[in-house]
Amino acid sequence: MATFSKVVSVGRDVLDGAAADAGDFRRRMQGRGILVMHLISSPGAGKTSLLEATARHFAGGARMAVLVGDIATTRDAQRLAPWAPVAQLTTGGACHLELPLVERGLAQLEPLDVEFLFIEDVGNLVCPASHNLGQHRRVIVLSTTEGDDKPGKYPKAFRTSEALVINKLDLLPHVPFSVEAAVEDARRIQPALEVFPLSAKTDEGIAAWCNYLTHERARLLGDIGCTTT
Amino acid sequence: MATFSKVVSVGRDVLDGAAADAGDFRRRMQGRGILVMHLISSPGAGKTSLLEATARHFAGGARMAVLVGDIATTRDAQRLAPWAPVAQLTTGGACHLELPLVERGLAQLEPLDVEFLFIEDVGNLVCPASHNLGQHRRVIVLSTTEGDDKPGKYPKAFRTSEALVINKLDLLPHVPFSVEAAVEDARRIQPALEVFPLSAKTDEGIAAWCNYLTHERARLLGDIGCTTT
Repeated sequence: MATFSKVVSVGRDVLDGAAADAGDFRRRMQGRGILVMHLISSPGAGKTSLLEATARHFAGGARMAVLVGDIATTRDAQRLAPWAPVAQLTTGGACHLELPLVERGLAQLEPLDVEFLFIEDVGNLVCPASHNLGQHRRVIVLSTTEGDDKPGKYPKAFRTSEALVINKLDLLPHVPFSVEAAVEDARRIQPALEVFPLSAKTDEGIAAWCNYLTHERARLLGDIGCTTT
Repeated sequence: MATFSKVVSVGRDVLDGAAADAGDFRRRMQGRGILVMHLISSPGAGKTSLLEATARHFAGGARMAVLVGDIATTRDAQRLAPWAPVAQLTTGGACHLELPLVERGLAQLEPLDVEFLFIEDVGNLVCPASHNLGQHRRVIVLSTTEGDDKPGKYPKAFRTSEALVINKLDLLPHVPFSVEAAVEDARRIQPALEVFPLSAKTDEGIAAWCNYLTHERARLLGDIGCTTT
């Protein structure tokens, strides 16, 4: 496991205003063999914990980097720094990430030789769903403590995602949450959703999630046939 | 306890575009003896559960009404309908409520004779903090499952609130959350925050929260001296 003592922090104020193109970004990353995953969720659903568990699982194997978005603080980057190259993107008040900030964060991490680039958006189940960051897949993380009624109430976040991670399975005995009801509600909106119930705390389900990542990267690189549009 | 079989649903499409003024709304409500409370939180933090517990506590006593905002569905209004007059405000995609929609929802509930009007915003810890809905007090609801690092990451929501409810105390044995750390972080941003740790599930702490509501209404009406500006 590599240790990264320095957290790169990129603020909105350093944007140069150059128009970035999501399709161009996506193709460039594909050309470098990098699968780009965009993670969205409510605050506290466990995006950072999921990435920590992912890095633990991949330790010594697949290589990953993280761009982590927040309105303020570098707390999430500090948590991830022991596990992967990470740049903290601070939006300074804005409720979501945009591609120019992503590009700038990535530039700070270059030269970068990884297989997976995770973009962790600001904790917000609404606005990030409307912004294309050049990802190959969007993943929505829903935790069992939020209630199984959320998909219908936040339809765009589910409709625009390829995968649904249901986190905090370890808390199921203590909360009124039905995995089946949540999945049914989510698939009413997006029937093609891949679903990964897991606990980033106990690592239950993390292997299946990481297999999905590896499989999707292989599809992207054409081993199976890329379906990204 | 009154039973309300009908849920009034107000969509953005019925707005007449009339500019509403937050100060005017606030003064009108004060003149009618109504304390207006604006509730904001992440999705699933328990705003609706808090209002259910509040209504249970006030049952047969203080009278309350609720305007509940969501992007889609009338799920929250259906939950609250047995307890209080409630109008569901659906934003149709927008990430926060605005005053014209609030005014329209209130009009649907008139004639209304209550002491408390709760406006439950869309679940979002960012955007609702930037919109004045004519409330007398803003309350941020943070649940123990979200982590105690949230105040610093979402500073505006805490800075613009008068009270902090820390919900889901019943889950404390199962989650890594320190009430002290969360309060310390929040008060670094907003030293004057009133804090109410509680569980809307077990009713622990609900009495103190309801006492606060009663006290704030008395202040508003001048019994103690209104400090609302």
